[in-house]
This record gives sequence, structure tokens and C-alpha cells, in this order.
Amino acid sequence: MKASIVTIGDEILLGQLVDTNSTWLADNLTQESVVIQNVLSISDKLEDIVESLELLSSASDLIIVTGGLGPTKDDVTKKALAEFMNTDMYFDETMFNKITAYFEKVGFTLTEAHRLQCYLPKGIEVLENKMGTAPGMYFTQKGTHILSLPGVPYEMKWIFENSFLPLLKSINNLGVPTLHRTIRTVGIGETRVEAKIRDIIDELPEGLSVAYLPGLGQVKVRLTARGQNAQDDVMEKYKTKLTNALGDYVYGFEKTLLEQALMDVFVRKGKTLATAESCTGGQIAAKIVSVSGSSKYFLGGSVSYSNEMKRIHLGVQEETLIEQGAVSEQTVIEMLDGLLQSSGADIGVAVSGIAGPGGGTPDKPVGTVWLAWGSKGERHTEKLQLGKDRIKNIEYTTVVAMNRLRLFLTH
Amino acid sequence: MKASIVTIGDEILLGQLVDTNSTWLADNLTQESVVIQNVLSISDKLEDIVESLELLSSASDLIIVTGGLGPTKDDVTKKALAEFMNTDMYFDETMFNKITAYFEKVGFTLTEAHRLQCYLPKGIEVLENKMGTAPGMYFTQKGTHILSLPGVPYEMKWIFENSFLPLLKSINNLGVPTLHRTIRTVGIGETRVEAKIRDIIDELPEGLSVAYLPGLGQVKVRLTARGQNAQDDVMEKYKTKLTNALGDYVYGFEKTLLEQALMDVFVRKGKTLATAESCTGGQIAAKIVSVSGSSKYFLGGSVSYSNEMKRIHLGVQEETLIEQGAVSEQTVIEMLDGLLQSSGADIGVAVSGIAGPGGGTPDKPVGTVWLAWGSKGERHTEKLQLGKDRIKNIEYTTVVAMNRLRLFLTH
Repeated sequence: MKASIVTIGDEILLGQLVDTNSTWLADNLTQESVVIQNVLSISDKLEDIVESLELLSSASDLIIVTGGLGPTKDDVTKKALAEFMNTDMYFDETMFNKITAYFEKVGFTLTEAHRLQCYLPKGIEVLENKMGTAPGMYFTQKGTHILSLPGVPYEMKWIFENSFLPLLKSINNLGVPTLHRTIRTVGIGETRVEAKIRDIIDELPEGLSVAYLPGLGQVKVRLTARGQNAQDDVMEKYKTKLTNALGDYVYGFEKTLLEQALMDVFVRKGKTLATAESCTGGQIAAKIVSVSGSSKYFLGGSVSYSNEMKRIHLGVQEETLIEQGAVSEQTVIEMLDGLLQSSGADIGVAVSGIAGPGGGTPDKPVGTVWLAWGSKGERHTEKLQLGKDRIKNIEYTTVVAMNRLRLFLTH
Repeated sequence: MKASIVTIGDEILLGQLVDTNSTWLADNLTQESVVIQNVLSISDKLEDIVESLELLSSASDLIIVTGGLGPTKDDVTKKALAEFMNTDMYFDETMFNKITAYFEKVGFTLTEAHRLQCYLPKGIEVLENKMGTAPGMYFTQKGTHILSLPGVPYEMKWIFENSFLPLLKSINNLGVPTLHRTIRTVGIGETRVEAKIRDIIDELPEGLSVAYLPGLGQVKVRLTARGQNAQDDVMEKYKTKLTNALGDYVYGFEKTLLEQALMDVFVRKGKTLATAESCTGGQIAAKIVSVSGSSKYFLGGSVSYSNEMKRIHLGVQEETLIEQGAVSEQTVIEMLDGLLQSSGADIGVAVSGIAGPGGGTPDKPVGTVWLAWGSKGERHTEKLQLGKDRIKNIEYTTVVAMNRLRLFLTH
């Protein structure tokens, strides 16, 4: 099944909003073996919407439209759908009664705008939306399935998952069967990943291919199978081969994030963790805490941004700060020691660096970052020499810190 | 001038990459009064690229294509451009010499893939790329300006800003003049923003309009002028009126982030800040540190995630934790007191809550968050009752904390 995604609204065209709705939809459709042919953002002009629907329907089996629904949006999408379907609007009593009942329950007053929302194009199927008042709408036109969803992400997602997905499974003509597997690596570049698995790639059976998706400090290896070899046992066999060839660089599969992999290994080993951060300013801790359940192993830490805080919270020696500087191996070692001492954690990580873009010296240019990690009995240090982009330096250092902790426990 | 943006590559269609390139381009083109008509993502199939260029060129004055360039991408975009232009490829000696010289300088070995990169469609203008080896390419076809950029964000941005922008300014036929102003508010919902400025909106001169762009805890008010009233003095007048009507809820304008506004007010008042975070896990500190120059006022803080850390780092009383619980007004007050004491900061903020999705009780459901902020002489507390989404709860609490600190110093 081939699909197109259309986003309606000015925010994306003005560059004021990143289109995460389309990414979410594309990801979820891909998991259903739907092939996305194009993702389009257009303005909320009626004629543009109709024209796009006409254009896309000739080549797509499914079109998903998001946005342009709801009381303040003038419901332009509904009007465009009616024009595209060459039909009139009707007043949906059932929907109106539901909204009325809901508003009475929560004690809100129904407005004229809400009443107008209940006018829908004749011939559509209303898909339930338990997260708001704008409905999902579904219909077929000349063999193309069309789904219209509101633009508010949690409403869009709810309708898709609960009201549309069962329907999709019933209409989805799979065409060429397709399967994906994703292997997530960290601490190794794209070319080195490729070199390590080249032999396996050369012997892949027909229909299987590999793509590399590089991120900051991470590379995802995506194995795709199309056709007769798109079978779970074939995929698992080559996923295992690739994983073995990549060894320790692999931290997880599919949608597992590095911070989740980190939690898994700490919980499995029954160890606790604390952090001491200068240049990353709490980013390592925040990443760790973003995972539900992190309190099982993460005790907390210190954001010792100023020298004073490094002394007070972590007991870094004043002479170390004066003689070696805040960005030095000795400082991060003392930060780590103080952290392990004061927190009582089994394992810790300490970071100090010059995130930039200012603050560099000839000796210690912007992007110099020192890390120390380990336990009371076994400490390691590492120096990074990064670029001038502050946000990138912070994010990259966070990835390195989490990976060092992961490897410390897996070795 | 009307423009289309086309992104080439599978990652977006598979939902594995959010298309931030298009957002950046749309934002930068909008600032040049270019009107974006559509943003399209397509696969890297040659025929799809050619077809899209043909389709879009009939209605767009400018098409910007990103992606599908570079040694590992098989340079499909170049081949598609040549087919669209109905021209052949030539070997660009100048480009080859430049790449050779660069590789000699950094001591890398030139590969065959790099040599192949120097084949370009006849008739294009090569735009310099100081960030990599894939060139920008520019040409006109039947009156439409076409720009091709690599997909790597920092290369794309560099070529656009340095090699293309001067060219754009010379070819840009402005059409209807358009101006934008953005007023950024925090701590007030969309409907209340609208109620506060309704009178001003009713009296806006012809061609001026207002749009609301809601985010988590924040609403951006965008004032747009098209036509004869698109003049700076008219815009400034109404921007001032709107700002005055919105009062303290306004923290900044245009692209200013809340964390930048926070730094500005602390630096202006000459005060220092420290943070004590439980459920936000360092996110408040990380946001603060993400702004360059934050060391001028931010000392650091404690990520006191476990009860032990609350006791050790901040001196929260054991009986408070037992009797009132870690998520309580008394706990955040003691966290704040301990923080101000140990850090020596003028002002502090302390947060403790249940981020979810687990960990709630009937008394303290998921989403219960306590904040305390202030100085030694003046403390405030606030209880939030949020939803069940962990990431959203952390981000929203971070916004509230930064806003409370901002207002504490501005009042």
C-alpha cells in the first residue's frame, strides 16, 4: 500500500513549527508495511487542499491529511474534503449530542463554533476522538482511502491508534512485503560501521539491504527486506550476524534509546549511579531521568557549574582549580571522588569542559572536555576535543558519558 | 516571490528523521519575504525527483532541493537536475583541484567517490561550500530559480547563508510586501491571550492580522502585515500596543527563548542563581546552561533525585521526608533553604514532584509537582497538578520554574 501524508497550516510553511506529526505518522505507517511516497505541507487555502488531494490520489492508495480542523481553523479541511468528494455538508446530530453531553459533564459552555464543527461532508465515516471535539474523518474516493485528522498531536495520535489502525489493518493491501530491523550503535562512525559489516552485506540474500542513519555520536544500521525474503527468521538471522560483527558498539535495537539501555544495564547489575556536571549543566542527569523508572538506579548529582560549587558540593581542591584549571583531568578526578563520597553511589561520572562558543584559550580551546567515570576502586578518564557549537558539544558529551558508563558495567 | 522546498531521502518517509532542514529554510526564506507554498519530502528515486521539479516549477519562482548529494548518496539529485535541465554532465576541474588541495592539507586520501562528485550538470553555477565537499548548485529553468543543497544541516546552512543569500536578495521579486513580528508570552493560555488583545485586533488597520502559536506553557502571538501597511513603524506601533496589553506575560520577542530572557534579567539585576531539582532531574539547569554566557549568573545546583541526596546535598530533614513525603511544600522549602545556604546564590528554585507515568498515590496523583523559589528573605511556593506524560510534565515544570524566577526579579 502506497501512502501520502499532507499537513495543512501556515506554521510549517513559515518555518515556525517542525513537522513532527508527519514523522510520527510515517513511522507508524512504515510499521504497518505502508510505503510513504511523499510528505507534503501546504497552506490552509481551500483550492490548494483540493488540488493536492486530486494530484496525490492518482498515485496513492492512502492519503492522510492532518490539520485545518477545529473551531478556530475555520474548518477549511472539511470544506475541501466536501469539494473533493463533490458532496454537501450535513449536520451530525450524534456528534453534536456527544459534544453537548461532554461539555455538560465538565461544566463548560458550548459555543457556536462547537456547533459548526458538527457540520460534516456527506458520505464520510466519523472516527471517534476521545481527546477533543474535532473528529477524525474517513472515506474512499475512486479507490483511494482518505483519512483526515486534527493537527493537535495527541488528538491525531489517539484517533490514528484507536479509531483508524484496526480499519487500516483490514484495508491494507500489503503489495511487496517489507520488513525492517534497526540496530543502534554508539561510539563509532559511519565508515567504521560499514567496514565492520561489509562482508555480511556482500552476502545478503536477494531483497535485503542495509542503510546507515548517522546521528550525534550514534549510527543506526537499518536492515530492510522486500519481497520473498521479508521473513522474520531471515531478518533475525542477519540482525544477529550484524550485531555480532558490531560487538560492544551495539547498545540496543529498534526504538530503544541509549538512556534506556543505560538504565537496563544498571538495573540488571544492581548498581546505583550519580553525576557531577559542569559544562553539560545537568543534561546527563536530565537524559537519565527522562526514562520512567530511573529512580531504580539514579540517585542524583551535582550541577557544579561554578568553581565554588565544585569546591562546596564535591570537595575539589582550591589549588587544583588554580593550578590545573576547572577543565583538567585532575579536576574531574576530584569531582568524581567527591561525588562518590557524598552520594554513596556505586558508580559516578564527572564532566568539565568549555562548551563554547566563548571561553577558550590557546591551551584549552573551545570544545575541550574532560570526563572521569568509574567506581571507588576503578577510575577512568578521557579528554574530548570537540567543535565550537555549544548545544552540539553538550549533547555529544552527554552521549559519550552515558556510553562510558554503559561499557564500564558491561565489561 | 513564491517558493517550494523539496527534501530528498528515505529517512523522512520512513519516519526516522524529523525534517528540521525544511523548517530552517522556511524560516530563513520567510525573513526574506519569500512565501513558501509547499514543503515536500520524496524518495531518492530519479524519476520522482524529476517529476516533482516539473510539477513545482509551474507554480514556484524558486525551488530549493536538499539532500541526495554526496559520495555515499549516488548523487541522484545531480542526475535528476541534469535530466530536468535536459543537459549532460561535465567534469569540474576547479572543484576537483579545490577538493584535492583540501585533502592534501588535512592529510586525507582522495577516493574515487570524491572524484565522481566533481561531475556536474552543464549550465549550473557552483556555489561554494566551505563545510564539506558537496557543492551547492544553482540554475534557472523556464524562469524558475532552482537551488540544490546537500542534506547535512551545517553544510546546507552555510551554503544558503554565504553563497546563496546575496544571490537571493538580487533576484527576489518581493511581490506583496510582508512583515512579521512575534511576541512571546508564558504562563497564559491561548484563549486568555486572545481576550486580552481582542480590542486591539478589532482596530487593526487593513492588511494586519494576528495568529496564535501555542506551545507547552507558552503562546507566541504573531503579527503579520501584507500590502501597503507592511511598514516598520506601523508594525512597531501595534507590537507595542499588543505588548502593553499582555504585560508581564511577555518575556521576549522574535526568536528570544525563555532561558535567554531569564539570563538577561539576572545579569541586568546582578543576581546569582542556583537550582535544586528532583523530578525535573537537571532539566532546569540544562536549559539555563544551554545559553552561552550563563556562567555570568548561574552557579549550579543539585539534582537531588533520591531522598538520600535531598538530605545530604540540601539538608532536608529526615522527618520531613517521612511525615510529609518527598513531594510536599515543606520538602521544597527545605530544599530551597539548603540550596541557598550551600551554594551562596542570591536566588534559588527547588522542585519535587511525581513525573509519572508510575509512582502516584490517591493523595498525590501522577503530575503533582511542588515548587519553591526566592531568596533568603522572600520565599514562594506553588503546587502544580499536571497530566500523566513524563516528558511533558518535566518540560512544563521547567517552563514554570524559569518563569517564576523571571517574575521574581522583574517585580
